[in-house]
Amino acid sequence: MLGCWRAAAVISAGSGWRAGCVRGRFSMAKSKFEYVRDFEVDDTCLPNCWIVVRLDGRNFHRFAEQHEFKKPNDDRALHLMTKCAQTVMQELEDIAIAYGQSDEYSFVFKKKSKWFKRRASKFMTHVVSQFASSYVFYWKDYFKDQQLLYPPGFDGRIVLYPSTQNLKDYLSWRQADCHINNLYNTVFWMLVQRSGLTPVQAQDRLQGTLAGDKNEILFSEFNINYNNEPLMYRKGTVLIWQKVNEVMTKKIKLPKEMEEKEVEVTRTRTKVVPLHCDIIGDQFWEEYPEILAEDS
Amino acid sequence: MLGCWRAAAVISAGSGWRAGCVRGRFSMAKSKFEYVRDFEVDDTCLPNCWIVVRLDGRNFHRFAEQHEFKKPNDDRALHLMTKCAQTVMQELEDIAIAYGQSDEYSFVFKKKSKWFKRRASKFMTHVVSQFASSYVFYWKDYFKDQQLLYPPGFDGRIVLYPSTQNLKDYLSWRQADCHINNLYNTVFWMLVQRSGLTPVQAQDRLQGTLAGDKNEILFSEFNINYNNEPLMYRKGTVLIWQKVNEVMTKKIKLPKEMEEKEVEVTRTRTKVVPLHCDIIGDQFWEEYPEILAEDS
Amino acid sequence: MLGCWRAAAVISAGSGWRAGCVRGRFSMAKSKFEYVRDFEVDDTCLPNCWIVVRLDGRNFHRFAEQHEFKKPNDDRALHLMTKCAQTVMQELEDIAIAYGQSDEYSFVFKKKSKWFKRRASKFMTHVVSQFASSYVFYWKDYFKDQQLLYPPGFDGRIVLYPSTQNLKDYLSWRQADCHINNLYNTVFWMLVQRSGLTPVQAQDRLQGTLAGDKNEILFSEFNINYNNEPLMYRKGTVLIWQKVNEVMTKKIKLPKEMEEKEVEVTRTRTKVVPLHCDIIGDQFWEEYPEILAEDS
Amino acid sequence: MLGCWRAAAVISAGSGWRAGCVRGRFSMAKSKFEYVRDFEVDDTCLPNCWIVVRLDGRNFHRFAEQHEFKKPNDDRALHLMTKCAQTVMQELEDIAIAYGQSDEYSFVFKKKSKWFKRRASKFMTHVVSQFASSYVFYWKDYFKDQQLLYPPGFDGRIVLYPSTQNLKDYLSWRQADCHINNLYNTVFWMLVQRSGLTPVQAQDRLQGTLAGDKNEILFSEFNINYNNEPLMYRKGTVLIWQKVNEVMTKKIKLPKEMEEKEVEVTRTRTKVVPLHCDIIGDQFWEEYPEILAEDS
Repeated sequence: MLGCWRAAAVISAGSGWRAGCVRGRFSMAKSKFEYVRDFEVDDTCLPNCWIVVRLDGRNFHRFAEQHEFKKPNDDRALHLMTKCAQTVMQELEDIAIAYGQSDEYSFVFKKKSKWFKRRASKFMTHVVSQFASSYVFYWKDYFKDQQLLYPPGFDGRIVLYPSTQNLKDYLSWRQADCHINNLYNTVFWMLVQRSGLTPVQAQDRLQGTLAGDKNEILFSEFNINYNNEPLMYRKGTVLIWQKVNEVMTKKIKLPKEMEEKEVEVTRTRTKVVPLHCDIIGDQFWEEYPEILAEDS
Repeated sequence: MLGCWRAAAVISAGSGWRAGCVRGRFSMAKSKFEYVRDFEVDDTCLPNCWIVVRLDGRNFHRFAEQHEFKKPNDDRALHLMTKCAQTVMQELEDIAIAYGQSDEYSFVFKKKSKWFKRRASKFMTHVVSQFASSYVFYWKDYFKDQQLLYPPGFDGRIVLYPSTQNLKDYLSWRQADCHINNLYNTVFWMLVQRSGLTPVQAQDRLQGTLAGDKNEILFSEFNINYNNEPLMYRKGTVLIWQKVNEVMTKKIKLPKEMEEKEVEVTRTRTKVVPLHCDIIGDQFWEEYPEILAEDS
Repeated sequence: MLGCWRAAAVISAGSGWRAGCVRGRFSMAKSKFEYVRDFEVDDTCLPNCWIVVRLDGRNFHRFAEQHEFKKPNDDRALHLMTKCAQTVMQELEDIAIAYGQSDEYSFVFKKKSKWFKRRASKFMTHVVSQFASSYVFYWKDYFKDQQLLYPPGFDGRIVLYPSTQNLKDYLSWRQADCHINNLYNTVFWMLVQRSGLTPVQAQDRLQGTLAGDKNEILFSEFNINYNNEPLMYRKGTVLIWQKVNEVMTKKIKLPKEMEEKEVEVTRTRTKVVPLHCDIIGDQFWEEYPEILAEDS
Repeated sequence: MLGCWRAAAVISAGSGWRAGCVRGRFSMAKSKFEYVRDFEVDDTCLPNCWIVVRLDGRNFHRFAEQHEFKKPNDDRALHLMTKCAQTVMQELEDIAIAYGQSDEYSFVFKKKSKWFKRRASKFMTHVVSQFASSYVFYWKDYFKDQQLLYPPGFDGRIVLYPSTQNLKDYLSWRQADCHINNLYNTVFWMLVQRSGLTPVQAQDRLQGTLAGDKNEILFSEFNINYNNEPLMYRKGTVLIWQKVNEVMTKKIKLPKEMEEKEVEVTRTRTKVVPLHCDIIGDQFWEEYPEILAEDS
C-alpha cells in the first residue's frame, strides 16, 4: 500500500500506456476519469510575501469545560499548545517564528519559502493536521491522569503580508488581543471565584470598564498587581529558532591506550525556544534581527 | 481563556469604544493593528457545486515501515483510517459520502451546504485536523501493543465539481486507482515475500505488464484468484449515512405496578456505515439515489 | 514591431542562451528580471460551468446627458449597443448567447469552452475592449451628426454558473431588471415630459407604487397601454446564432456557351440575430434547445 | 434608461418590498432570481502591493499589416498608443506610472489605492476599455488619411508586486524586452528592406547572433550606429505625472479703468508627460523619488 508502491504502479501503468498496449478495464477507466484533475485550482501564494497560518481550537470552550481547565489560565493546556507548535516548527519547513495565546497559534513562513511551491492548501493542512495529531499524542505528558475524552478539532486560515511592517503589526495585533483578553479574564474569574458573583453579574460589573478600571479592581479588591501576573499569561508565547550549545560526555578509547576516557564534547544545535516577552515594541526585533531578515 | 470569554471581552471593549471613552494602551494598540485583518482573502466556494476534500497521509511510506504495517494491506491501518473518516463525518456538517483507500480519504460535502459560508479553508482544515487527532486517539483500539512512535501528518486539498456526473467520475477515478494499485501491490509483494525477489527484481518483472498478466502471475505462480481477494482491498471503503434500527432493552416501572419490567424499544438512528462495493457502475447509485439527490 | 517579430526574437535569444553563449547586457538583464513573471496568478475558470461576462457603461448617465440621449429609451444608443455586442460575438470564440438592456450586455460562453484555457482575465478584457472600440467605430452609423465627444469606458465582471438552471435564472434576473426599470422610467419621463413634474416630484409620486399602479398611471393619465410599448424596450435584446439562407445572384459563363448567365445561388450562413422576446418562461428555451445543449 | 434612473427604480422597488406590499409579477420574479448574485467571486487585490495592469494588442501583427504600419517602428502607431495611455491615466484613478513599447502598455496603480475597493476585474476592464475606445477615437489624429478598417481588440492581465524592488524589476523586464526586440527588428528589417533578403533568410542570418553581432551588422553593412537610433524606439515610453507651469494671457478689465488689459497668468497643473529614458538603472528613480514613494 501507500506512497512509494503506488508511485511504482503508476510508472508501470504509464509505460504500458505509452507503449500503446491494450490495457485492462481499470486502467482504461482510470484514464477516462482523470479529466477530473483539471478541476483542481492553483492556490499558489504570491511570492515575496510573509505567509501566516493561524490555527484556532474548535469549540474549545466546551472542550475546556469537559477537561476541567483551570480558569482563567491552565498551565497544562498552554504548555501542551506550545509543545504542539514546537512540533509543527520542527516537522514542517521554513517557519521563522510562531506566536500563541489561549487556544490559537500563528505560524510565520519565510517570505522566500518555496515549500510545496507555496501552495496555500499545503501550508494550512500540514500545520493543522500536525498540530492536531500532536495534541493527542502529547496530551498525557501534560494532563497526566486527566483523560482525553474525545479528539479535538482545529481550524486554520492563511494570510499573506507583503511588508515586514505588516507582519509585525499582525503579531502585535495578536499580542494586544492576548493582553486585553487576559486582563478581562483575570478580573472576571476573580469576581466569580473569590467574590462569588455569577458569570452574568461579573460581566455586568465589567461592562464598559477600561484597562485602568480593571487594574484598580484587581488591586483594591484582590490585592493583585496585574503586572506581577506570569508573563506567559500576559504576553503569550513566542517560538523562535535558537542556537544552543549542548555539552555531552562521551566515552572514547584511543587506539594505543588500554582504558576508556571520558571526554566533554560541545555541540551546537538549532532548537525551537519559547519566550514570553513583548513583541509589540522595537526591542525584540532589534535583539533578533535574523528572524525577519530580508533574505529569509 | 478561550472562546466565550474572549467574545465577552470583545463586546466590552467594543461598547467602550463606541461610547467614545478613553481606552487603555493595549486597546488603542489593538485597534491600530486591526487593519491587518483586511489582508485575509475571501475563499468562498462557488455555490451549487459538490465540494470534495481529499486527505493524504504525509510520508506514510516511512510511517508504515516504522510501524510495521503488513504488506500489501494492513487491516489495522485500513480500519483505523475508516474509524477516523467516520468521526469526521459525524463531527462535521453536510458530508454526503466519503471514499477511502490506502492512506487517503475523500469527503464529499453537499452541493447546497452552507457550512461556514462555504469557506474553503474551513472545510480543509476541519477535515484534516479532526482526522489527524482521531488517528492518534483511536490508534490503540486498532494497533493494540504496537506503540505509536510519533504524531503523523496529513495534507488536504479541495476540489469543486459542478455536475453530479463530474463527482461520480471523481469517485470512480479514486476507485480505479485503488484497483490498479492493489493489483500491482498484491503481485509485487507475492514476488518479494514468496518468491524471494528483491524489490528491484519484482519491479522489473512487473514492468510493462497489463492487468491480465498480473492476474495470470497470481494464479499460475501463487494459486491466487485475484477476484477472491477481500473486497476492502480491491474496492476500498465507501462511507454512507444509513438509517439503522436499534433494538434496546429498557427497564421501566409503571406507576401502578410494583415491579420493574424489561421492555424492548426500537429506535431509528442515522449512522455512518462502511461498504466495500463498486461505485464505478450505475448499480450503487441506483440503489442509493438519496446520496446525490439534487436538493442535497 | 509587434507579435510575430517579437516571437522570432525570443526564439533566437532562447537558442543562444541554450547554447551557453555569452549574451549582451540586455539579454542578461532580461533573464535576471524574468522572475517577475512568477507573480502572475492562474485565473483559470472552473471547467464545466457557464461563463458569463457582464459589461456596463461607465458613468453613462453623464454620457447620455452630454450626447442628448432620448429618454427613457434612445433607439440609436440601444442599436449601437447591439451592434457592438454582435461584433463581440463574431470576433471572440464560443459565445452561445448574449443579452442586453440599457447600458449593459451579458455574454454567455459555452460550458465546454477552452478559449484561452478559460483564463478569466482573457474573457473579461477581450469582451470589454472589443465592445469599447466597436462603440466608437460604429458610433457615426447610428448617431449620424451627433458628434461623439469623448471615448467612453466600460467595466466588466465574470461569473460562473454550474447548472443550466442557474444560467437561465441569471438571464431571467437581467430581463426582470429590464422590465422593472423600463416600466419605472416610462412613467417617470411621462410625468416629467408631459405633466411637467420636476424629477424630484416624479420620484415622489412613484415612491412605493407597484407595477399595477404604474400601469394605471400610464393608462389613465397618458392613454398608454404599457403592453403596447416596443418589445425592445420592455424585453431588451437577445442575441443568438441562427442559420440564415442567403440567395445571391451570380454571373457565370459556361465553357461551351458564348454568353454569361445569371444564376441564383443559395448559401447557408450562421449569423448573430437579435430577438426581443421573453426568456424568463420556458417557451424560448424549448424553441431553441441547441443554445444551452449539454455538449456546448 | 441608464445608471441614475435605474438606481431610483431600485430604491422604489426596495421600499415597497420592505413595506411588505404585494408586488407585480416581475418584481417577484426578480427577487426570486437574485440568488445568482451570490455566484460572483470577491477578487479584491491584496493590500499594500503595487498593482500592474498590462495590456496587449490582439492580433496586432495582422492589424499592422492591414494598416500599413512602417517597419520596424511606426511613429503614428507609437504616438497613438501613448495618447491612449495618457487618456487612461487621466480618466482612471491612482495610476502612478505607465510604461509602453510596441503594442503593449503597463499601468502601475499605487500601493495604497482603494479605487473600486481594489477589485481586480474593475482595474483590468476599465484600463482596456478606456484604452480601446481611445484608440479608435484618436486614430484619425495620428493616421490622417489612413482609414481604420475595423475596431481592434486588446487583452489585459493584472499582477501584484509586494515590494518596490519587484516593481522596478517588472518595469526593467519590459524595457529590456523592448531593447532586445527593437535591436532584432532593426537589423531584421534592414536585411529585408535594404539587402533584399526574404524574411526567412533574414531570420536565418540572425539565428544565434548576440547583441554585439547585431550592432556590428548594422554598422558595417548599413552604416547605422544603433545608439543613435531614436530613444523612443530603443527605450519605449515612460508616462509620469509632472507639475507644469502654464503661462496664459488673460484679458481683464479693472473696475476703475476704461480699457481692457492683457495680463500674464501662471498656473501650475499636473499633466501626464512622456519620457524616453532608461528606467533600468537607479538614476531615473533617484530623479523622481515621488513616483514610488512609500505612502503612495
